[in-house]
Amino acid sequence: MRVFVVHAHPEPKSFNGAMTRQATEGLTAAGHEVAVSDLYAMGFNAVSDRRNFTTTHDPHYYRQESEESYAAAHDGFSSDIQAEMDKLFWCDALILQFPLWWFGVPAILKGWVDRVFASGGKIYGGGKWFDRGVLAGKRAMCSTTIGGQPPMYSAHGLSGPISTILFPINHGMLYFTGFTVVEPFIVHAPRRISCEDRAEYLARYRDRVLGLATAPTISYPKLDDYDEQFVLKSSQSTRNQLDLHSTVKTPRP
Amino acid sequence: MRVFVVHAHPEPKSFNGAMTRQATEGLTAAGHEVAVSDLYAMGFNAVSDRRNFTTTHDPHYYRQESEESYAAAHDGFSSDIQAEMDKLFWCDALILQFPLWWFGVPAILKGWVDRVFASGGKIYGGGKWFDRGVLAGKRAMCSTTIGGQPPMYSAHGLSGPISTILFPINHGMLYFTGFTVVEPFIVHAPRRISCEDRAEYLARYRDRVLGLATAPTISYPKLDDYDEQFVLKSSQSTRNQLDLHSTVKTPRP
Repeated sequence: MRVFVVHAHPEPKSFNGAMTRQATEGLTAAGHEVAVSDLYAMGFNAVSDRRNFTTTHDPHYYRQESEESYAAAHDGFSSDIQAEMDKLFWCDALILQFPLWWFGVPAILKGWVDRVFASGGKIYGGGKWFDRGVLAGKRAMCSTTIGGQPPMYSAHGLSGPISTILFPINHGMLYFTGFTVVEPFIVHAPRRISCEDRAEYLARYRDRVLGLATAPTISYPKLDDYDEQFVLKSSQSTRNQLDLHSTVKTPRP
Repeated sequence: MRVFVVHAHPEPKSFNGAMTRQATEGLTAAGHEVAVSDLYAMGFNAVSDRRNFTTTHDPHYYRQESEESYAAAHDGFSSDIQAEMDKLFWCDALILQFPLWWFGVPAILKGWVDRVFASGGKIYGGGKWFDRGVLAGKRAMCSTTIGGQPPMYSAHGLSGPISTILFPINHGMLYFTGFTVVEPFIVHAPRRISCEDRAEYLARYRDRVLGLATAPTISYPKLDDYDEQFVLKSSQSTRNQLDLHSTVKTPRP
């Protein structure tokens, strides 16, 4: 198995750092291959603009999708973006490792998605999306730390259901580009638990990563389930899909 | 009325640009005051790290919340962050103007939130959140352009309900810090509509911005509605709140 970890935390000694080291060591020891993009360590540029490209389609009006399509047709992506695309094509499984900041990915990781997930058929576009996506056949998983406790992220919790909070990532970024989405691995309040519980979390994370190929996945409708207006044909609904995944599945120590 | 627009689009000639110009001109002509943070034009740093601070609490281990609390107590925020905080305190209403990228705000705007919305009681913390938030009494609104058509963002649409997609922003960023959240103003596929329809959208946007003080808002539960585990006491649910707002409210030309 080839696993690509995109890691987004400014402190190497953080629990996020420990999780990525655990994943890397566990996978390597088991004979798998691992690539890590440590976005903070790389000084990855988070801001999507003309610097994404070595080509220019329209110098007078910057339309990102048009520039992406032109770059896709003319080998015109900047080297930092091309390197990330190459790792995406290389991997069998992608892990997004991040602390949940403001109910989403940190800006440096959002910028990675904004810039690397380019249209024009490179990562999506031309009918290549969701189950017909460029990255179909690969798996992807969010691995995230959250400051609050699980009740706060339950169906009636103050923060809202974690499945709703992660929906734009799991469905909107990962499934959109074709990935089969593995249930997220969530660690609550790693600062506030004991060393033993942290070790237990890491052991479970190692197991999850080693079992990525068979770990439980989130089931979304397929493109064929939608009509020409992109509305579900049957009574099956995306809201039901959300409801199915509104509980926190990660076992707690 | 003092209105603060945080604008996140790389192309000044874009429809997002036209919307912010429309808001600025309309508000100014009506005697209101406007401040605009044009994040791309400012070259705003999107990446949250030690550069957020002039102070250092722990040089060996970077914990963002600890550094924020220390900076809040020692006047230690970097000048770019302090300037944005000052505009937040100054305004009566905040507008986030952005294209929906990957079902969320562009990274440069996520970075603005990651960096400016600091804990330690400055923007939140110490019991100051949601209806007891630092920014309570002020209003905030998302104004966003979306590439796809409304059916795709309806309850059973391919992208998922727009209310679910915007929940982490409306509830998790804006209500979290105390804002009263105004219904979003959404423009679908501005590239694919006629000049007349674009003009109509701009006229309606001008009306919405001029009427910000009385525009319809999203009703969320209050902190007193939650128990000590931050779970709703009554049968009222955040999911119901989501359901209430699962339709696209912005009138279409």
